[in-house]
This record gives sequence, structure tokens and C-alpha cells, in this order.
Amino acid sequence: MIDRRSLLAAMGAATVTLGLPSRSLAQPLPEPLSSGGKRHRVVVLGAGIAGLVAARELERQGASVTVLEARQRVGGRVWTLRGGDRFTDSHGVTQTVGFSPGLYQNAGAARLPSHHQGVLGLIRELGVPIEPLVNASRSAFLSDEHGTLRLREASYDLRGYLSQLLQEALREGTFDVELDAPTRQALAKFLTVYGDLGQDGQFHGTARAGLVSPPGATPRDLPRAVAPRTLDDILAHPALPFILFDDDILMQATMVAPRGGMDAFPKALAAALRRPVVTGAQVTAIRRQGDGVRIEWRDGAGKPQATLADRAVVTLPLPILAGIPSDFAAPVKAAIASARLADSVKVAFESAPFWEAEQIYGGLSFVGGETGVIWYPSDRFQAPRQVLLAAYTATPAGARAFAARPIAQQIALARAAVDKVHPGHGQDLASPVVINWGKQPFSQGPWIEWGQDGNDPATLDRLNQGDGPFVFAGSHLSAYSGHWQEGAVLSARRAVGLLSPTPASQGE
Amino acid sequence: MIDRRSLLAAMGAATVTLGLPSRSLAQPLPEPLSSGGKRHRVVVLGAGIAGLVAARELERQGASVTVLEARQRVGGRVWTLRGGDRFTDSHGVTQTVGFSPGLYQNAGAARLPSHHQGVLGLIRELGVPIEPLVNASRSAFLSDEHGTLRLREASYDLRGYLSQLLQEALREGTFDVELDAPTRQALAKFLTVYGDLGQDGQFHGTARAGLVSPPGATPRDLPRAVAPRTLDDILAHPALPFILFDDDILMQATMVAPRGGMDAFPKALAAALRRPVVTGAQVTAIRRQGDGVRIEWRDGAGKPQATLADRAVVTLPLPILAGIPSDFAAPVKAAIASARLADSVKVAFESAPFWEAEQIYGGLSFVGGETGVIWYPSDRFQAPRQVLLAAYTATPAGARAFAARPIAQQIALARAAVDKVHPGHGQDLASPVVINWGKQPFSQGPWIEWGQDGNDPATLDRLNQGDGPFVFAGSHLSAYSGHWQEGAVLSARRAVGLLSPTPASQGE
Repeated sequence: MIDRRSLLAAMGAATVTLGLPSRSLAQPLPEPLSSGGKRHRVVVLGAGIAGLVAARELERQGASVTVLEARQRVGGRVWTLRGGDRFTDSHGVTQTVGFSPGLYQNAGAARLPSHHQGVLGLIRELGVPIEPLVNASRSAFLSDEHGTLRLREASYDLRGYLSQLLQEALREGTFDVELDAPTRQALAKFLTVYGDLGQDGQFHGTARAGLVSPPGATPRDLPRAVAPRTLDDILAHPALPFILFDDDILMQATMVAPRGGMDAFPKALAAALRRPVVTGAQVTAIRRQGDGVRIEWRDGAGKPQATLADRAVVTLPLPILAGIPSDFAAPVKAAIASARLADSVKVAFESAPFWEAEQIYGGLSFVGGETGVIWYPSDRFQAPRQVLLAAYTATPAGARAFAARPIAQQIALARAAVDKVHPGHGQDLASPVVINWGKQPFSQGPWIEWGQDGNDPATLDRLNQGDGPFVFAGSHLSAYSGHWQEGAVLSARRAVGLLSPTPASQGE
Repeated sequence: MIDRRSLLAAMGAATVTLGLPSRSLAQPLPEPLSSGGKRHRVVVLGAGIAGLVAARELERQGASVTVLEARQRVGGRVWTLRGGDRFTDSHGVTQTVGFSPGLYQNAGAARLPSHHQGVLGLIRELGVPIEPLVNASRSAFLSDEHGTLRLREASYDLRGYLSQLLQEALREGTFDVELDAPTRQALAKFLTVYGDLGQDGQFHGTARAGLVSPPGATPRDLPRAVAPRTLDDILAHPALPFILFDDDILMQATMVAPRGGMDAFPKALAAALRRPVVTGAQVTAIRRQGDGVRIEWRDGAGKPQATLADRAVVTLPLPILAGIPSDFAAPVKAAIASARLADSVKVAFESAPFWEAEQIYGGLSFVGGETGVIWYPSDRFQAPRQVLLAAYTATPAGARAFAARPIAQQIALARAAVDKVHPGHGQDLASPVVINWGKQPFSQGPWIEWGQDGNDPATLDRLNQGDGPFVFAGSHLSAYSGHWQEGAVLSARRAVGLLSPTPASQGE
């Protein structure tokens, strides 16, 4: 059975691990900028969320900021694909997105929890319109080697049986010592409602699990609930823990997303900068020069360039950074070199929304296997053409296996997974696009699973201290391990804080 | 403690009651129209959803349809209020809606379950854009005389304790006879994940219930979960069953609503009719004439008019109908006269979205008392001004008490309820509008609680049989008791079916 950690890992969402409050590190901080009269120059490497947020904060503090971005676009893993977009992976395979006008797929980040107030605060400030992101539909399916059933059947039949068992235990006196009589009475009363139990305290099925016939045109046309599954049948589903997916604090309602694509956020961040991001700028060397830095790079035309600055904020993915000659201190280089990226793959298609005929509007079906989930769109209900995310796999093991396959095979498997849960509809899927994050130039992967893949979170401490004129930022350096934009925002703000004169040093 | 039925009744949502399959009635059906060469004339009384859908279906069958509507608008209880709208209740009190441009409040119907395929099918056919309606936010509050807590605390702390108790009972052998060893093992394993239990099988709190400190900028800034409540503390909340609100099949994710206001649906229905709805037409008498009907009415200028037709589809609310002279058969009149409407009240304000600072985006807080709930908007997240439904009360008892109060008092109570859950923010609420359904002309109430208020569902059988040239339709005649538009659609289609020649009679 799937354990709690892999439940969300499977979804590309690091489980929130509880721990002790952070302890401060007795190690030297990077060198803050002096607060003298001169205008500080800061170079920011990478125009993902961390780089853009760092640039924004630094500009607000009066610095002159140059943002260098290797891609021709900002946003990093916040990337939205639309019809006509072309991209080439690191194996040289080019895809052109064939979606109809107005359709899109968020290739990377695609949802925001309502408690990610860092991102949501910026989005509000920038006036980026957001809308609900439907992250759970009870009509969607749980499908594994044991069979296929609606999420509402798995959830509510299970709860019925658990409530019935607890009622029985209460009646048999199992908790007579542990719970006092008023608690036992209150619990017994509540369990009847909780499990939708019969007068006899037994579970006989519930309309919560679905209706075989809905309420009808007259008062005599009463609804009939689906027949309940047995407890054994439900427990036999290896994918059962996925009914808990949207109970995780990171996946709970309400989730939101920018209207029209997640890239509205980085685009708005970039548009609000005083100095435009330099795109197509591939960093070739990261050097110290005097008290400051010298960043060597090639521009879009391949011409060598260099940028001198007082400080640098380095947000590049660690394996990318490991390949760039630098003057980082040896332990910093070692920390960078030790990081191993995870992998994830998304396969999207354009389609008529056949799933709406099955009462599915948004949310996810958990289909197991290499393709992981089917994620239904919630941005344009009932539109004749929509984009279905037919596969999204991000388990450390599963994603690697799936990522290793040729694109044509990934498409075929994603189509087959949809056809299994929505029989006959695999053929409705058109205009496939596959995003293999492990093969995306300048990313090489989606995030780092700290504590897995040989990634020791302690090595991050060294990077989060900074290194002379260099500070590091990025969601991968945060407690979010790179899974969430919120980590990028928090990490960027922290990095800028390290560069800022402390109140004590402001008089220098 | 609130029982299952009143749980949803409190929300204006008839609980789905399970029953036997419908039985056919051994009583005469109304007279179908002949399928002869002449074009049938049908008059439809009322341009709510039932009337509009009936008119649409009849026009499609080739009938010449006249729809008479007393109001100056279509939609009936599907009514959306916007800035500048003025309305006067049956006590002569006029309100002018003061909302800013673009803001609205659905005065009546406001959400659609994704399994209401009758309504959704029409909405799709008519091209009415829909969007997610966020019906549950785990960040919202449960508040009653025992205190206030987040819904996620109540839900997940409770589940933690229930899972722990079941673990204990399993360990103590309570289910050794009932469940075989593999089931017990599978259950024990699952309960650990289900309740987010510790290694020791005990519940020590869960991040699902919320975080006192979120994950931070470095891997050391691990999140800390809120301290768990005790089981007794949770069970002491009389409003606890409201954590189950969105488990009901009628309230489960995903729910949707037309973009920009529910009235887009009836407006689109009306716009698609060949003959426009006659608004301002107050029916004064419903007569038989020959084989057909003669409907007497006053037009908008107060001038008496009469419409002759072969058949009539009567969708008026029963207490309205009871006050109109008619040639209905005596048992039909008696059935109509016996119906008692329920009551419900909505109080809405315009406000800056202070609730978003508390991570609430859409969903409902359950605040108890006469005001029932606070329902947060999900149509324009993060917009500087939004409309908050500060009170929505629909319990048979509660709504009557609240409805009896003067409007100023209803506004003050709604404001106080918001201030209790969002301290200091009662004063942010501006531009109040109060919809007392019991005082709405041509409605006199929101729906009929069959089986309550002395309403015997059996009396409906008589109406659903029709009466000579008259057939009756409306959500109040359906298994939805008037709570849902789906009932109106189904009832209208059934009524049209009663009028349609059967295959056997088509050759006449």
C-alpha cells in the first residue's frame, strides 16, 4: 500500500513533514551590501520565480539589477504551453503544440494553495487575475489493479464501514475505560451522521457514494444510492490512500491558479521590473572580481558578454550550476555537485470533454501505473475543446521509468490510461504534448527530493549561508524542496535579506 | 446535535432521501395533444426555469407557445442582483442594490452540482459559460456556542481520533470475529494513513488541520502543525455535523455556476424562445374553454387580456396559484391550497475581501444562530471589492424567526455574525441587501418542505397527474421539493411529455 510520503510525492507535491522549529546556524553569513551613497549593482542568475522576486525586492531597495536568463522566456518551471509553441528537449526532439486557440497546459507549476500567501500576495499586488483550481472532484475515479470506482464510493463507503465498526466497539465497551460516558454518547450519535449509518447502527450504503438513479420529476421518483462495496473490496485497492490526496494541507480546497495560465505570474513579475530581463543569456562563468562578481555569459547571438556587479543572486538549478565554471568556495561547489534532481513527466492532449458526460469537472483520477493521474481541466468547463492532462507522474521510481521511454510510447501509454478509465475515449485525444522535465534544457529536472536520491538536506545549509558576494535562492533551497512556487518566493526574500544591510550596519 | 436532515435543510438543500423506486399511478393522465395538422397553442404560466424549459420543449415540438410572467424579468427564483437594481417586497419595503459595477449576488439559486445533467445539458446547449463554484474551503470556520475553529481542524483532528480508536479496538481484538486477519491488517495499515497517526498508533496532531508556521525559506524551516484539539472539545461543538456539509451528494465537489450570475441561464433560455416571454403579465383567472384553456391576465399597463390555447403548463408557486380563480378540479384545488411554503433569507454586503487574508477563498463558514452561514464568493478572487453572503438561513424554524425581523435588524445580525468570526470586520461590510423570500411578490417563499410544515407529498400526486387541459410543472412538484433547478427541468420535461401524443396515438 502507498505510504503517506509517496502519496503526495506521486503527485509532485512534497508531503509536509513536521519537525522542530528551525535552529539558527553558527556559520558566517554572506557579505551584506554597504548602505553607502552609491547605487548597488546586483546580477540575478535565472528568471524563474526566485530570480524575479529577488530582482523585484532588490530594485525596491534601490539596487540596479540585471537579470540573466538562458531561456527566451521568463518563469523557469512556471511555463504555459499554447498552440504554436515549439520546444526542443535536450535529446534534440522538437515538439510543436497543436492546441486550438485559447487552450493551454501548465507544463510545470499549475496550482496554488490558498495558504501560500507569499505567492498570492504578489499576485494580488501585481493584479494577476486568479480563479479556482478544482483539485478534487468526487466524481473522478480511483483505478488500480483491483478495479475502478468513483472516488466518492471509495471515500464514503469506507467511512460508513469505519463508523459502523466504531459504533460496534462502543457498544461492546471497548472504550469504556478510555472515554467517559458523555463522550461515548456524543461519539455514538455523531458516528451515525458521520458514516450515514442506518437506525441499526449498520452501514447499508449512502447517497454520498453516488446515485444509480437521481431524484426525478415527481416526489415519487426518489433517488437510489449505489450499492455499497464491501469493506474488503475497498481495502483491496492498493491506490486507496489517494482518496486522501486533497486532505493534505498542500492540496486542500481552496486551490487557485492564474486565469489563462500560470505564466501570467512570472510575466507580471518581469513586466514590473525597471530593467527588463536579459533573455537568451547563457552563463558561462561565475567569477569573483574584487569585492564583487563578474558574470560571463553568451548572448542570444552567441556573443560573449560580461556583467560586473557588487553581488550576485544565483537561482540556477544546482545540476546546471555544477556545470558552470565558478569561483565558489570548495564546500559550496561540493554541495552543488552533490544534488540530484528528481524527474517528472506530463502528457497533455486536446479533446472534447467526454469526462463531463461522466459528471467530472476538474479534479483528478488516480490511475496508478507509470502515468499516475488524469487531471481534468477546470479553466473552461463545457467548452467544446479542452486540454486534458492524461499523465502526470512524479514518483521517484515511476517517473524515471516513464521518462526513460520514447515520447511516442509516453503518448501511447497516457492514451491507454485514459482509455482504461474512460473506455472508448482514448481515441478522442488529439494534439499530444509531452513535457519531460528531466530533458528540459536549463532545468534537467523538476525538483530535488531532499532525503532521497542521496540528497542530504544538510548540504543545503552551506548554500543557504551564501558565499562571499554570492547568495543562492530558489525553491529547491527551501523547505518546499522545489515543489512549490512559495518556496521560491520565501527563498528569494531570504537571499535578498542576506544582502541587505542589517540595522546595526546601516550607519557604516 | 444537528441531525442529518436538518444539516442540509439548514443550507436550503433538501437532503437526498433514499427510497423505493417510483411506482406508477393508476390514475388518469391529462389529455395529450392530438398530432393532427394544426399547430397547437400552449400557454405557459410562469417564466421560471420550469416554464422556460417547458416552452422550449414545446416550441421544439412545433407548438405555438405563449409564456406569461408576472414579473418584469424571467427566472423566478433564479435572480441575480446587481448595483442599481431596485425591488419592493410584499410589505412595501423597497431596496436599491448599492454594489459596485461587476459585482452581483445570486438572490436565489446559486450553485449547480456536477451531476445535475438536466440543467448542465441545457447550459451547454445554450453556450452559457460556467465556472467552478467553490462550495467548501477547509480554511473556513465552524463557529457555535462552544467556540470557533477552522473546518480543517474539526475534520482532521476528529478523523485522527477516530482512527486511533479503531486502531485500539483492532489491537484489543474487538473485531477478531467480524473481520478476518488480512482485513484487520489492511485496515490497521490504512488507518495510520487515514488518521495521520504516529508510529505508536496514537494521534498527535496533523498538518492537515493547519500549520502554525508554514514551511519556510530553508530546509530547516520545517512547518509546525496546529496543536490538536481534544476529542471531547471537538464533539462538544453542536455544529460539528456541518463538517459533513460538502459530503452530501448535492454539495460535493465539483459544483459550478454560470459566470457573472445564475440569471444567465434563464436569460439564455428565454432568448432562445421563438416568441418572447410576455413579462408584467399577472394571471387573474385560469379557465377551461371547450377542450382548451382561457387564461385571463392583466398586462403591464393594467389592461385586461385573455389568451386562448389548447393546453396550459402551470408553473406558478402553489400558494400564488391558490389565490387565482380557476376551473381546476376540486381535488386539484385542494392539493394546491394545502401547500405551505418554507422561508429563507439571504443578507449580502459588498466588502474588501478581508477573509482572503485568513486564507479563505470561497466556501462557507458555519456560524449557527439565526444567520446560518457566511458564504464567501468564488467568482472574483482577490478583486478589491467582492460580495459576501453574510447570512443565509433556511432551516424551517430558524428562517422563520429571522424572516420575521425588520430588515435593519437582519442586516445588524448578519453583520454581527461576520464580526464574531472575523473580528473587527463587521464594519467593512457596505451596501447591504436583504432577500426575504417569504416576502417576494410572486414567490412568497423559496420552496416547499414536503413531509414538513403539514405538507403531505401524496397531495403532489394529484398535481403531477395534470387536470384535463392543464399540466403542472415546477421544482416544487419534483423530488427536489423546489430546492434545485434540476427539479424544475425534470418536472417541465415530464409535463411536456404528458401533453405529447404517445407513439400509439400518433396515427390519430
